[in-house]
Amino acid sequence: MTNGATDLLSRMSGTGEYLVKNARLMTMAPQRGAPQEGLGIVEEGAVLVRDGKIVFAGEEKAAPQVTAQCETIDVGGRWVSPGLIDCHTHVVYGGNRAKEFEMRLEGASYEAIARAGGGIVSTVRATRKLSVDELVATALPRVDALLAEGVTTMEIKSGYGLSLETELNMLRAARRIGELRPVRVRTSCLTAHALPEEYKGRADDYITDVVLPVIETAHAQGLVDAVDGFCENIAFSPEQMARVFDKAKASGLPVKLHAEQLSNLGGAKLAASYHALSADHLEYLDEAGVAAMAEAGTVAVLLPGAFYTIHETQKPPVAALRKARVPIALATDCNPGTSPLTSLLLTMNMAATLFSLRVDECLRAVTRHAAQALGLQASCGTLEAGKCADLAVWDIAEPAELVYRIGFNPLYARFISSQSL
Amino acid sequence: MTNGATDLLSRMSGTGEYLVKNARLMTMAPQRGAPQEGLGIVEEGAVLVRDGKIVFAGEEKAAPQVTAQCETIDVGGRWVSPGLIDCHTHVVYGGNRAKEFEMRLEGASYEAIARAGGGIVSTVRATRKLSVDELVATALPRVDALLAEGVTTMEIKSGYGLSLETELNMLRAARRIGELRPVRVRTSCLTAHALPEEYKGRADDYITDVVLPVIETAHAQGLVDAVDGFCENIAFSPEQMARVFDKAKASGLPVKLHAEQLSNLGGAKLAASYHALSADHLEYLDEAGVAAMAEAGTVAVLLPGAFYTIHETQKPPVAALRKARVPIALATDCNPGTSPLTSLLLTMNMAATLFSLRVDECLRAVTRHAAQALGLQASCGTLEAGKCADLAVWDIAEPAELVYRIGFNPLYARFISSQSL
Ligand SMILES: [Zn+2]
Ligand SMILES: [Zn+2]
Repeated sequence: MTNGATDLLSRMSGTGEYLVKNARLMTMAPQRGAPQEGLGIVEEGAVLVRDGKIVFAGEEKAAPQVTAQCETIDVGGRWVSPGLIDCHTHVVYGGNRAKEFEMRLEGASYEAIARAGGGIVSTVRATRKLSVDELVATALPRVDALLAEGVTTMEIKSGYGLSLETELNMLRAARRIGELRPVRVRTSCLTAHALPEEYKGRADDYITDVVLPVIETAHAQGLVDAVDGFCENIAFSPEQMARVFDKAKASGLPVKLHAEQLSNLGGAKLAASYHALSADHLEYLDEAGVAAMAEAGTVAVLLPGAFYTIHETQKPPVAALRKARVPIALATDCNPGTSPLTSLLLTMNMAATLFSLRVDECLRAVTRHAAQALGLQASCGTLEAGKCADLAVWDIAEPAELVYRIGFNPLYARFISSQSL
Repeated sequence: MTNGATDLLSRMSGTGEYLVKNARLMTMAPQRGAPQEGLGIVEEGAVLVRDGKIVFAGEEKAAPQVTAQCETIDVGGRWVSPGLIDCHTHVVYGGNRAKEFEMRLEGASYEAIARAGGGIVSTVRATRKLSVDELVATALPRVDALLAEGVTTMEIKSGYGLSLETELNMLRAARRIGELRPVRVRTSCLTAHALPEEYKGRADDYITDVVLPVIETAHAQGLVDAVDGFCENIAFSPEQMARVFDKAKASGLPVKLHAEQLSNLGGAKLAASYHALSADHLEYLDEAGVAAMAEAGTVAVLLPGAFYTIHETQKPPVAALRKARVPIALATDCNPGTSPLTSLLLTMNMAATLFSLRVDECLRAVTRHAAQALGLQASCGTLEAGKCADLAVWDIAEPAELVYRIGFNPLYARFISSQSL
């Protein structure tokens, strides 16, 4: 989990050809093994990469002829998976909420914490004060922790600026991170995250004055890949979110939603009606919401780090999601208030331990299904010909170890394609 | 969490003099600040080390005159704490229980898992097959993960050999780890951990034939620092443990006990009657047990990783322990079955989140109180003159970050004294 490890083991592949051989592959490809199930395992496997793309992934003995210039990388029988994908993060923010965490453990009330400058308001205040460079600098240690565990694609949201210029700065910081580090960054505009103090009691005005203009400007400047929101009693109503989603639709941007985390407002159903990429959290999701998501092909992104941190007891309806064949993804939800978590491996262990997700479900949830949650299923998330050459190589005896171990990082190497999507 | 980081940032200090300056100290010393409370903070602090011992820890301006040969290490205003202490681990073992974890998530019964070769029996079988060298080699990645987070002292138990020669081999492996890595290792003889298959139904014979001879031989060979046991319906009764503790007493060895994890057998009270260093787990500890521990000065070692992994709902009686002023320590309990955890930082977060321990309690629990749980309070666990120069230097804005963050390692450097104790 140190920068050193990232530098050491990371490899960017642009042009040229290389063959990763003597590998055990978790391809995560649906057509290998039982449909929708399993890890698509290939023992004695190899992956051939050309110009940043996988041209072959399968049994080594079936690999195509390589050119004389082809570099061969023997991974010594290690396991190789697709690079991991963290599809829900708030990794860009200012300030530090450790003090608030300490106060809460000492029994301080939410009022006392707010008076002492805590809560999301404090993060907004601190974020607004930082330049793009400063936002990047404070986020990089968190990004590096994720990368050191094999993450090759991550989503980053705005949502702590809550004004035009500060929201754009957060999105610029997110884009910059993708340039500075070997990671593919997808940005989500989450200006509909919370109501800033200056708009207290005027949520509709805030949407008119700030949220819609941010989407428009961010889109014009190429800063945004999707539009997100927080649909909850303490945030925005389904009607308000519909206005935001209409704007996204008009701009040709896909949507996603923080829904049913603390109560059931029907946010997932609303999101599904806009063919959302994902609905996220979902502890209070009901059968109608599950059905709507299944119908729309919306991914369920579960966030066990937040569940754990806020002592939630209502679990997301995993059995119903399985039954309806809604794809389940997992993410860190890395944020300063409710999930100060920077380990996607630990996120899998939490999902298994707290939500009873199976090992294969956890592994799909941070690869193939996480790619789908970002609309990247055509290019990421499995080891298949035509996909980007994003690989993670692991020092483990079997795939289950990635979920079973707690606070342990067996990453041996990571490869990321320089292909832009 | 990689070996690289350990090598890079670790420094062994034998002879000579050095001054760590421009530091913010969490001395954890009881006489600084409110008695029994706080972190003993010194802003603008310095630590002077001579021949592996702290000769001064306090305000930089009050530091004594140094010799011309003194090396100065400016840590740039970073926080410095005592090296962390993991006072309860089973880090030496053979085999891998990831498969069993996977089967359990797929709904397999305990019988099915046992038939497939799972459970503690499988760890015993795998451990017995390994040589001392092999035991060391398989344990080192786990040890390195702990060290990379600032651990400078750790306890390692036997208890998966369950025969004379294999138990001695586990203790030899533990000693070897302390020679190969910059970490102070204390060993505990836990031959009374489980009943091996060949003694089924004959626990008393097992104690006579195996446990007592292991203690005697291990002690004669200098392999053991304390005697431990597992007092539980599925393991050994208080009467059986008393036989083991009598042997320890006769050998002049201190004792400790796995007690009140799954039920209340009065193990903590028994341990206290032998002036045990610690009683560990303690979810089902009652008032009488708390009082006995307080009276005897026995440390309460809480193990949230096991609580989390086995989905325990009964929490240890933290309020009662506080009220009785029983020192609370925390440890990973790193083991393949119920706590495959190799992060002491995450252990603190779990204790705060799951047991509502305060930040200062968590930090004392992995420094001063963990030292006491190993009988090392005179030489480790605080930054005070006369103690070993075991230091951890952190890239954090405030101490609470060490507890608040999840899956993040802000260790900047570690120093360990080569003083043997
Ligand atoms: Zn979120
Ligand atoms: Zn134990």
